[in-house]
Amino acid sequence: MLPSKVQQLVQLLARLPGVGDKTAQRFALFLAASEMDTARALGDALHAMADGIGSCARCGHIAEVSGPDTPPCCDICGDNKRDSTRLCVVARIQDLLSIERSNAFRGHYFVLGRLLSPLEGVGAEELPVDALKLRIDGADPPVTEVLIATPPSVDGEATALLIAQELAPLDVQVSRLASGVPHGGDLEFADPITISRAIAGRRGMD
Amino acid sequence: MLPSKVQQLVQLLARLPGVGDKTAQRFALFLAASEMDTARALGDALHAMADGIGSCARCGHIAEVSGPDTPPCCDICGDNKRDSTRLCVVARIQDLLSIERSNAFRGHYFVLGRLLSPLEGVGAEELPVDALKLRIDGADPPVTEVLIATPPSVDGEATALLIAQELAPLDVQVSRLASGVPHGGDLEFADPITISRAIAGRRGMD
Repeated sequence: MLPSKVQQLVQLLARLPGVGDKTAQRFALFLAASEMDTARALGDALHAMADGIGSCARCGHIAEVSGPDTPPCCDICGDNKRDSTRLCVVARIQDLLSIERSNAFRGHYFVLGRLLSPLEGVGAEELPVDALKLRIDGADPPVTEVLIATPPSVDGEATALLIAQELAPLDVQVSRLASGVPHGGDLEFADPITISRAIAGRRGMD
Repeated sequence: MLPSKVQQLVQLLARLPGVGDKTAQRFALFLAASEMDTARALGDALHAMADGIGSCARCGHIAEVSGPDTPPCCDICGDNKRDSTRLCVVARIQDLLSIERSNAFRGHYFVLGRLLSPLEGVGAEELPVDALKLRIDGADPPVTEVLIATPPSVDGEATALLIAQELAPLDVQVSRLASGVPHGGDLEFADPITISRAIAGRRGMD
């Protein structure tokens, strides 16, 4: 019922996370029904990003590409005011941004890009553990602490355990993000695992 | 925290209906983190649509542009097997597609593009009522029935009333989509207005 050019757009929009065929059709019809300027601007922005943005060669965060021969370097890796002795390992760029918003960590990052997931067929060999070891080995000044900030889910915990094991031979302190009742959260509605983690991770009040 | 090229993309994605800044950032990070092929393909598809798709000159539905001098004509207006004596007036292209899926109407359409909406500042002069009258006046074979299929909301009802008044001098029968309890719906959970409409619109069981 729709021209093929609109259908192709719908299929591509449906690849976006959380977008099904209905929502993709809604997006495409919105773009087709408004002035085509929005569609063109969005097309240009996508091409500009595809050509001008890459992965930071050091940490995997989003970085601007400065030239064909220069490996991309993100703002965080390029910021020499940050504490280079601390490295935070995150699963996704979104998690990095979330930690940055908290202003509680001023070190550097390492983005895994994925978590161990037996159900989705992601095994240990698909995690960039060797790249992480190289990053720590080659660091100057040396990295003294690695904070594993994978999410407190089954996959996130498994990934944290694997990384902790892999980093054990290295001369770094490995820590893990605390898990417990969130700020503003209600004990009444917290699930039993969160409660038991909050109890297991209790801290002395000095 | 994100490069300007990614931020520009986020701003444009946030114009999509139902997409806020957070979702737009999620879309942009998804596209930036996957191979750039998806971003490029989406950019190409948007340009292809912007260049190759327009509004049907007769009904306002989406239509392929065949040349710079030919007014676009959609599949429905171009289909001479359809009943040209019936015209269905809809608010949006989505509504047209929904009616097409029902297979219950084989006439032609007229897409208003918007509804009367005092709250959003859309007055009668912004509705294409003159274009609708021209469409009916100039039709050959003549249009004998106009089915107003705007939604049964406050704005939709106001628009239907306005159009019915405007079409009164013309020699056409004006009808309105029935409103009542939907198929599979439960009387227990139907709202009072739906119930009262279903009663007011009751039909004899001959």
